[in-house]
Amino acid sequence: MIPMERPEALDARDPLARLRERFALPSGVIYLDGNSLGALPIGVSERVAAVVREQWGKGLIHSWNDAGWYDLPMRVGDRIAPLVGAMPGEIVVGDSTSVSLYRVVAAALSLRPDRHIIVTEEGNFPTDLYILEGIKQLRPNLEIRAIERDVDPASALEGAAALVLTHVDYKTGLVRDMKRLSTAAHQAGALAVWDLSHSTGVLELDLHGGGADFAVGCGYKYLNGGPGAPSFTWAAPAVVADARQPLSGWFGHRDPFAFDATYAPAPGVRRFITGTQQVLSLVALDEALKVWEGVSMRHVRAKSMAQTERFIERVESGIAESGGGEGELRLVSPRDPAVRGGHVSFAHANGYAIVQALIAEGVIGDFRAPDLMRFGFSPLYLSFAEIDRAADALVQIIATRSWDRPRFTKRRVVT
Amino acid sequence: MIPMERPEALDARDPLARLRERFALPSGVIYLDGNSLGALPIGVSERVAAVVREQWGKGLIHSWNDAGWYDLPMRVGDRIAPLVGAMPGEIVVGDSTSVSLYRVVAAALSLRPDRHIIVTEEGNFPTDLYILEGIKQLRPNLEIRAIERDVDPASALEGAAALVLTHVDYKTGLVRDMKRLSTAAHQAGALAVWDLSHSTGVLELDLHGGGADFAVGCGYKYLNGGPGAPSFTWAAPAVVADARQPLSGWFGHRDPFAFDATYAPAPGVRRFITGTQQVLSLVALDEALKVWEGVSMRHVRAKSMAQTERFIERVESGIAESGGGEGELRLVSPRDPAVRGGHVSFAHANGYAIVQALIAEGVIGDFRAPDLMRFGFSPLYLSFAEIDRAADALVQIIATRSWDRPRFTKRRVVT
Repeated sequence: MIPMERPEALDARDPLARLRERFALPSGVIYLDGNSLGALPIGVSERVAAVVREQWGKGLIHSWNDAGWYDLPMRVGDRIAPLVGAMPGEIVVGDSTSVSLYRVVAAALSLRPDRHIIVTEEGNFPTDLYILEGIKQLRPNLEIRAIERDVDPASALEGAAALVLTHVDYKTGLVRDMKRLSTAAHQAGALAVWDLSHSTGVLELDLHGGGADFAVGCGYKYLNGGPGAPSFTWAAPAVVADARQPLSGWFGHRDPFAFDATYAPAPGVRRFITGTQQVLSLVALDEALKVWEGVSMRHVRAKSMAQTERFIERVESGIAESGGGEGELRLVSPRDPAVRGGHVSFAHANGYAIVQALIAEGVIGDFRAPDLMRFGFSPLYLSFAEIDRAADALVQIIATRSWDRPRFTKRRVVT
Repeated sequence: MIPMERPEALDARDPLARLRERFALPSGVIYLDGNSLGALPIGVSERVAAVVREQWGKGLIHSWNDAGWYDLPMRVGDRIAPLVGAMPGEIVVGDSTSVSLYRVVAAALSLRPDRHIIVTEEGNFPTDLYILEGIKQLRPNLEIRAIERDVDPASALEGAAALVLTHVDYKTGLVRDMKRLSTAAHQAGALAVWDLSHSTGVLELDLHGGGADFAVGCGYKYLNGGPGAPSFTWAAPAVVADARQPLSGWFGHRDPFAFDATYAPAPGVRRFITGTQQVLSLVALDEALKVWEGVSMRHVRAKSMAQTERFIERVESGIAESGGGEGELRLVSPRDPAVRGGHVSFAHANGYAIVQALIAEGVIGDFRAPDLMRFGFSPLYLSFAEIDRAADALVQIIATRSWDRPRFTKRRVVT
């Protein structure tokens, strides 16, 4: 085996290393759950407190104009645009990812009124499937074609109105080929709807080049917008003007303050928000996104691949050298970094207990039933030295501890 | 005319007067827009900042359990329950009022699968009408029967699945008779859905006694939850278990952390939220609601009626004594306080300019096109002395100023 380069050398030439000081991470913690809830960027608590005290407390109702609250959904969208290959004015931010997905899937259906099939995959993140079920509640003639894991979605598109996929699988980290699948959707006459929740802020994305029609993504994972931060929505310029979505609330109206009795959608993507937006959560995300100014997504992706690669290698070689310990460790994520996102999943029969033991040592990953240990690597705040310490801790626990029996207790963790 | 009692005497025996010090109102301002964005309760900025720093920054992902973020939608609901005549566990908080309305109207339709008519009024708050339009996008056979202002909704219920009304009219402040209209809905086989946005926190509400089936309400008006604060949803115990709503996201799932592929709604009202909730905005509302602990809604309503009554009397008698000034002032709100909510609207051809002149003098009301001046009275933080000063300022401006012509410029104000 080729000896690994020393982590200090990698950290010394990491162009993103300077960003670590922008985050308020607790000391003694190696945080490998930024794919679930991103760490706190410094300045967010001060910004939110100032907005509460000054803009709400003193500006009161006038802050909707004077402090620009009304425009926040588009302004925050403009901060996200360069991270996903979108243009200014193409992204709106507001409401949860589930709500945003409902809107864009319904909008895709509005553009294919004679079609009644949605293609997705049965292993999609559950809330995405629940949302499709929900649309079917009001559109009972809808067929939800949820393909199995080993079926190519491109082969199931006949007659479909829309292909609805998550770009990076929440369990395995597998990256879908956006361009190939969007093209296949278009060739079948369908629209391509992408959930970028596990991609945004860690992959190089190119929504225009990738041929997507609609995309939604999460504000609280790699974007570090805080717990339950609002989601974002993008619509391709070619489809936005004709797209209609059913959560037609006044904040997506062309002129909400005319108080017209009839809905008329805003000209662009702003039609993809609904009611009055939660300003405090939007402001936190806005502040968090300042960390990304001047950051190259090419650097982010390169570091992410290097870190996931190093983690896998160091864990697997460590286990091999130690004799393996009790139970088998199996890489569930793709071995090819080109199709692996920002997190790495290993299966182990004692996964739950191992993750708990890691947490006790300050290495925070998460667990997904029945046996999945998931480790997320946020390139903005993780060093290569931490990758090594986390890998070594995992090896040490697996190699030296014994467990009475495979243990699994259900546990609430928000992905 | 009987001389008015001195305001100092009224303030001295006001059982709510002590609450004024719980709010951070700017000095020199009389805030008559709490029906649009409630004032800032002291402690909110500190609470939110602490949640950001400690729970997010240090607790990280574990705060979903350890800090109780996951349970916030129900815990905040329990704070609202006593204000609207609901029981603990019957209210869930999350998402915007528009989104919540979509969910409950769709749920009402799910309970009346053979009916396709929704009755509402054409003067309803616009976003409520837009949301009904939106439901029709997915259910094209839906008929939205929007009755005119002077038609009794009870007369239009034949064949209806649901009656969808706003309890207090956003323009006039007219209070609908919840019990009479809910009963009429039931007699027609329909469900009664109430939007309590302009009622909650200022009227005595009795959802159980009033016969409502579903209700939604706003967090940022009289509840003072901050800009865009999440809304709340109540469902009657008799209907909640069978009600299905289409925004079926994982946070309303019976067991979200089982990651089942199929949606199964939470047993109670929690099924009426959708995705991951915006914690920072929820926390602000949670903190703001502490002001209400031990407050009697009977006292709130009594003070509200006394204040709106006094304001109307003092304005009208002042105008009469002054000779009236240029243009006619006309009370648009009901003269009978029993059917008048927490705000008072006057029409005046120069309404826009008058409201601007009032704001320049520190009296903040708002304006609704074409000629409506709207003044909201939040009994938690307004004194009778302020009512008098605001009324006198309004009289003074109308009686002494002249305007070139009726002026109206569209202006963004969030109701």
